[in-house]
Amino acid sequence: MELVTREIDIENFPLADGDILVKNQYLSLDPYMRGKMRKPDTKSYSPPFDLDKVLQGRGIGTIIKSNNANYKVGWEEYSHIPKDATSGIAELSEAISKSNAPKSYFLGLLGMPGLSAYVGLNKIGKPKKGETIFISAASGAVGQVVGQIAKIKGLRVIGSAGDDSKVKYLEELNFDGTFNYKTCNIDEFETNQFLSKNSGETLDIVLNRLNLNARVIACGMISQYNTKTPYGVKNLMNVVSKRLLIQGFIVGDHYQEIDAFQKDMDEWLKQGKIKYKEDIVEGIQNAPEAFLNLLTGKNFGKAIIKIC
Amino acid sequence: MELVTREIDIENFPLADGDILVKNQYLSLDPYMRGKMRKPDTKSYSPPFDLDKVLQGRGIGTIIKSNNANYKVGWEEYSHIPKDATSGIAELSEAISKSNAPKSYFLGLLGMPGLSAYVGLNKIGKPKKGETIFISAASGAVGQVVGQIAKIKGLRVIGSAGDDSKVKYLEELNFDGTFNYKTCNIDEFETNQFLSKNSGETLDIVLNRLNLNARVIACGMISQYNTKTPYGVKNLMNVVSKRLLIQGFIVGDHYQEIDAFQKDMDEWLKQGKIKYKEDIVEGIQNAPEAFLNLLTGKNFGKAIIKIC
Repeated sequence: MELVTREIDIENFPLADGDILVKNQYLSLDPYMRGKMRKPDTKSYSPPFDLDKVLQGRGIGTIIKSNNANYKVGWEEYSHIPKDATSGIAELSEAISKSNAPKSYFLGLLGMPGLSAYVGLNKIGKPKKGETIFISAASGAVGQVVGQIAKIKGLRVIGSAGDDSKVKYLEELNFDGTFNYKTCNIDEFETNQFLSKNSGETLDIVLNRLNLNARVIACGMISQYNTKTPYGVKNLMNVVSKRLLIQGFIVGDHYQEIDAFQKDMDEWLKQGKIKYKEDIVEGIQNAPEAFLNLLTGKNFGKAIIKIC
Repeated sequence: MELVTREIDIENFPLADGDILVKNQYLSLDPYMRGKMRKPDTKSYSPPFDLDKVLQGRGIGTIIKSNNANYKVGWEEYSHIPKDATSGIAELSEAISKSNAPKSYFLGLLGMPGLSAYVGLNKIGKPKKGETIFISAASGAVGQVVGQIAKIKGLRVIGSAGDDSKVKYLEELNFDGTFNYKTCNIDEFETNQFLSKNSGETLDIVLNRLNLNARVIACGMISQYNTKTPYGVKNLMNVVSKRLLIQGFIVGDHYQEIDAFQKDMDEWLKQGKIKYKEDIVEGIQNAPEAFLNLLTGKNFGKAIIKIC
């Protein structure tokens, strides 16, 4: 990655009909972006990033210039958004204006990672009060939300993370069981559900511990994104003997749930039932390092770049 | 395993109230039995066999002596069935008398393996006309039934087996694509469903080939039953990126479907739409070797012992 400085003349910036110009304030770093850094001929669910081009991703900013009747100049380093990429901005803008939450939450708790947690738990996990859920990467952008929603729904929540400060945070969230997977063997526990973001060895251990009819909600496998020697999962025989369901999902298929999700989440926030830990790094020049930290678990909470 | 000869006096065999005495004709060998040959402290979905006791399993025989008003002496080397284990025998007896199919089919096509095929495909696979299904262990007791039901439902059926004569049989069943997985690399193909009986390496290759939203119906993992070094499955990342569903099931949970299943299957048999390959070994003394052959893929079709 390369930091490139380009001068723009805001005053005279040419905007085609329908285009807008945005000054970015927060940029979101998300694990899925690693999947887009690939050779263009490898097919996947989302198109690859183009070499030598600016990365695409989510952000929060202010419209500073508009040639689009639907988007008035309102609030915020500068993205030129062509007309055909402006969809969803109005809805986001409205949701931000209605909510008391910090704007940056719309990249995390109230945005894509929060929606992943909400959809994965409700639609696939179908949690029943009294069940136990185990969450790996439990202090991450998605995991912390899953755990807190699960508590609201009356589940017993066990979470693991790879760092004692993260584990302490899980305790603050009133998780019923927590451990550092790097320093602690997983003790005997049984669980009805498993929200998997890092897979690999953890998944293997968990497969031996799951209860009958447990569901494994697979929304990512971050430990496997950056490796050439993927971990081989040996305990899949449990899938048959325990009638397990392993279901993968991509949050992009579920944006029809965004309104219901944001409404519920805003309510939980107001009631003080949900906390959210962000890892905000200042300065776009620090984005590449922050992104690498995200892939190796050195971040703590939702990774965000704040443009100073 | 040990061949034990015991003399019984049929005439004076003592039967408690409700007990019956059965002369066995066919005994079923099934892969699940391997799972029951384990240390008693290992939990699983079905209780372990007891050391130094007769194996439990399915069979077809004739009742030769009865102290149970519901079971008249009718048809067969001798099982003493205590009263509380006689449930289901009346239903089986009635189904056999109604059907034109060979009696032994009630251990295969019209019995537990056939029901596995029917339930797994319909309830989990939820097949849509025009989709493609890939079946491993496709000439086995379950696989051959899945493939033929899938053809009836308008699917494109690809099957693999580990022996050229088995592959030839799959061609006779009009499968749309067949190959010997021991001698042939899996070519580029895409599939919407996967009926997995042997897992391991095949599953790994298939995970890279499955279509979006494909379902993996896991009813067994025969290649892994008899190994101390289970294969590590490396391509599970596809579960997320392709939104795959992997669902394990145990046919024992689905016996409420048996009537509907036997009715459909009898009809398909009458219409000549279904064939069934049995591997009938004569003589109970040959059962242990036949069972080992089943675990290493040397059987060809549903493994059955015929008691001479």
